[in-house]
Amino acid sequence: MPQNVYDDPEFFAKYSQFDRSVLGLAGAAEWPVLSGMLPDLSGMQVLDLGCGFGWFCRWARKHAAASVTGIDLSTKMIERARRETDDAAITYLLGSIEEFDFPPETFDCVFSSLAFHYIESFDGVCDRVARVLTGGGRFVFSIEHPIYTAPANPGWAVDSAGERAWPLNQYQDQGARRTDWLVPGVLKYHRTVSTYANTLIEHGFQLTRIEEWGPTATELAARPALEDERHRPIFMLVAASL
Amino acid sequence: MPQNVYDDPEFFAKYSQFDRSVLGLAGAAEWPVLSGMLPDLSGMQVLDLGCGFGWFCRWARKHAAASVTGIDLSTKMIERARRETDDAAITYLLGSIEEFDFPPETFDCVFSSLAFHYIESFDGVCDRVARVLTGGGRFVFSIEHPIYTAPANPGWAVDSAGERAWPLNQYQDQGARRTDWLVPGVLKYHRTVSTYANTLIEHGFQLTRIEEWGPTATELAARPALEDERHRPIFMLVAASL
Repeated sequence: MPQNVYDDPEFFAKYSQFDRSVLGLAGAAEWPVLSGMLPDLSGMQVLDLGCGFGWFCRWARKHAAASVTGIDLSTKMIERARRETDDAAITYLLGSIEEFDFPPETFDCVFSSLAFHYIESFDGVCDRVARVLTGGGRFVFSIEHPIYTAPANPGWAVDSAGERAWPLNQYQDQGARRTDWLVPGVLKYHRTVSTYANTLIEHGFQLTRIEEWGPTATELAARPALEDERHRPIFMLVAASL
Repeated sequence: MPQNVYDDPEFFAKYSQFDRSVLGLAGAAEWPVLSGMLPDLSGMQVLDLGCGFGWFCRWARKHAAASVTGIDLSTKMIERARRETDDAAITYLLGSIEEFDFPPETFDCVFSSLAFHYIESFDGVCDRVARVLTGGGRFVFSIEHPIYTAPANPGWAVDSAGERAWPLNQYQDQGARRTDWLVPGVLKYHRTVSTYANTLIEHGFQLTRIEEWGPTATELAARPALEDERHRPIFMLVAASL
């Protein structure tokens, strides 16, 4: 049974206050880089895995995607997405990334933002995405970076000289991690960079770009609190083609 | 002027006592994985960048490489390599990874073990390797993992719960790192995983495998001291083809 923490009332209430929930894509620090990794969506059939409130689906239509399908496990998110969307070419489906199914070669581009680190089998994800993508199709997604998901105690510590440092450990131990994020005991899955890369390659994808998001000097000047994000990457963004 | 710390008498004396200097490839913990990333070398023209004592060059010839050229900046290493090699199809050249030059498409496979993190420009490396490789040629190398090269103070620390942790910081700040390794102030260059991957891709390489080396359960049982290596990857191994 896929985890559905987003429908937890406390989690949902807190998540809904995030910049990325209120402002949409403009509130997501990594969006300028991630959007630059997308192909020209004009005329494309697009799938968004873990579509949340539908921000990306609507953006894709503004950029001339022929149609967009968004899938999310959260009833609350799908409900809000439908409420905020008035476009017959966008379809929101309640469903899981573990179990979605479409005819082969239905989509030209599959997108996903910060969802796959909740999914136990990335092999399963690649299997299904490779099947529903057209030949030459594009797969662009973001995840929490493996450096971010690995630690036993993922909070800032100090190094031997007293400098702020991210306490990396158990990097090679892939699998479940329980972390307190908005609510206690959220279940995530840690995988190494190698596993993400090699699983894509084994499913016939060609890696076209990997980005480990960190703030630019300009972003840092505007938001000094982003300094931490220079020390360890919080997100990994991947573009691949079939 | 390329750095040549390997000819520093103290460094050379200490390095010469390492398992990988005494036992060769059998003394390199990552070799079982790295060797599995190599193509069948039969009949290939092979180049080894940073060949050291020539262990890999001789191994390649045992595996039927047509010829092998090894390049190293260290006079002492090249001298020992020549002394220990009796094979007209192996050539050792004193030279640097920053400046080597061969006619286009001279080699079918370029190999390098733990050398590129001493090189300031990986872009330059990829440029030269892409030029001397044949179409479809293979590029297989190991480096110190970016997680290993990043920290300001690369020694073990503890997390908030007192657990052993690698104090990762300044990951996004690419460039020179001075570390005390065998001798004080050895100069290495930190680059992110993204930079390694994207630089290869921009030079026309297709990534075929990435491994972040860590000990297997069997290796750990045989050498409990390797436990640290489960917590953060020390080496990154990359296979690409042109």
